[in-house]
Amino acid sequence: MTFKAPDSLAEQIAHHIAERIIRGELKPAERIQEQKVTQALNVSRGSVREALLILERRHLVAILPRRGAQVTVLDAHNVQSLCTLMSELYVLLGIAVAENWKAQSDLATFLQIQQRLIASYEREDVKAFVEDSFNVMRAAYAFANNPYLQETVDNLQPSMSRCYYLALDQRKAEMQDYLTLFDQLLAAVLARDTVQVRSVLTDYGQRSCQLVLAALDAG
Amino acid sequence: MTFKAPDSLAEQIAHHIAERIIRGELKPAERIQEQKVTQALNVSRGSVREALLILERRHLVAILPRRGAQVTVLDAHNVQSLCTLMSELYVLLGIAVAENWKAQSDLATFLQIQQRLIASYEREDVKAFVEDSFNVMRAAYAFANNPYLQETVDNLQPSMSRCYYLALDQRKAEMQDYLTLFDQLLAAVLARDTVQVRSVLTDYGQRSCQLVLAALDAG
Repeated sequence: MTFKAPDSLAEQIAHHIAERIIRGELKPAERIQEQKVTQALNVSRGSVREALLILERRHLVAILPRRGAQVTVLDAHNVQSLCTLMSELYVLLGIAVAENWKAQSDLATFLQIQQRLIASYEREDVKAFVEDSFNVMRAAYAFANNPYLQETVDNLQPSMSRCYYLALDQRKAEMQDYLTLFDQLLAAVLARDTVQVRSVLTDYGQRSCQLVLAALDAG
Repeated sequence: MTFKAPDSLAEQIAHHIAERIIRGELKPAERIQEQKVTQALNVSRGSVREALLILERRHLVAILPRRGAQVTVLDAHNVQSLCTLMSELYVLLGIAVAENWKAQSDLATFLQIQQRLIASYEREDVKAFVEDSFNVMRAAYAFANNPYLQETVDNLQPSMSRCYYLALDQRKAEMQDYLTLFDQLLAAVLARDTVQVRSVLTDYGQRSCQLVLAALDAG
């Protein structure tokens, strides 16, 4: 077990605000006033400014010179841009797993996640389902062994969470389809069929993107 | 012409430190003490902390809980990881140009950059040559029209600069080969041959990576 240092205060503030953005409590383009956060959380202005920079790195906040911080906008173009990039990064991770697993036991984590996904599907727990789908990507990090790729995906992940949160209802109706896709993905990884890995993950990315765009339209 | 707001103080400090890291004046794993920077530049501690977060986003600095900031390490594994990811992102940009140019005049910027690269080669100005090679990627942004991709590449670019700075001598000997690759790239883009775009850019990425690894070995 690795020792995880406690998060810095700035990181804790960033996490708190990130959750509010992901859940939609802070709206797109809403201004985030340093002073209000400072007072509400009883923390220093410096810590809040650092938290905002962390949120900017995670694409949740834009800091505009002289105009302060605001929640980033999620429009169709942003959603498509995010899905396009994320999809390519998932393909890199997927191919890394397909190429680098040695014994089948290396893939045990993915089978455990699959069991949890099935359980979430059966009790119709779409939030647990979506959260576990991110664990697939995290379990792939060790196979890619690429700190830059990992950091990049980690920085994009909160925006994906935000997209998925928007589309929870849409996703709920399609959980079974995702289980089928995940089954196909595991089979492709097991067969080291990188062309099929790319194809399944691109399908997955496009479907997810369509769900979010439908939710944007409906919202 | 678009109006560019002046950089914040934190951004200016980050830029100053980034240049020193890229040029190797600040060594890998060297500690960066907030207080020293504060005194040397006569700026507030808050601005320095913000600058360090910006540098962390650009993969030049690691901030460790209770241990402060230090320059990131550039070892063979990091270089390979960075090149692998960057190469894939270049492919995304290259394919976007190949698929999205409308009139041949859309590609004029790339031809201008090519002329400048040839001029830099002829006067053996390897620094100008390397700097202009980044302008190729920047000129591709408009075709990809993907803010997440652009931000990701922008955040990785300083680390690539740092790698290339390390390998300037190696690069100098190979400028002509790069001109040939760039010629092939432009031909592939013009023919909308995305398979060839991927192939040329992957070659380019691997060659660049080998140069940097050779420089690491020599250094």
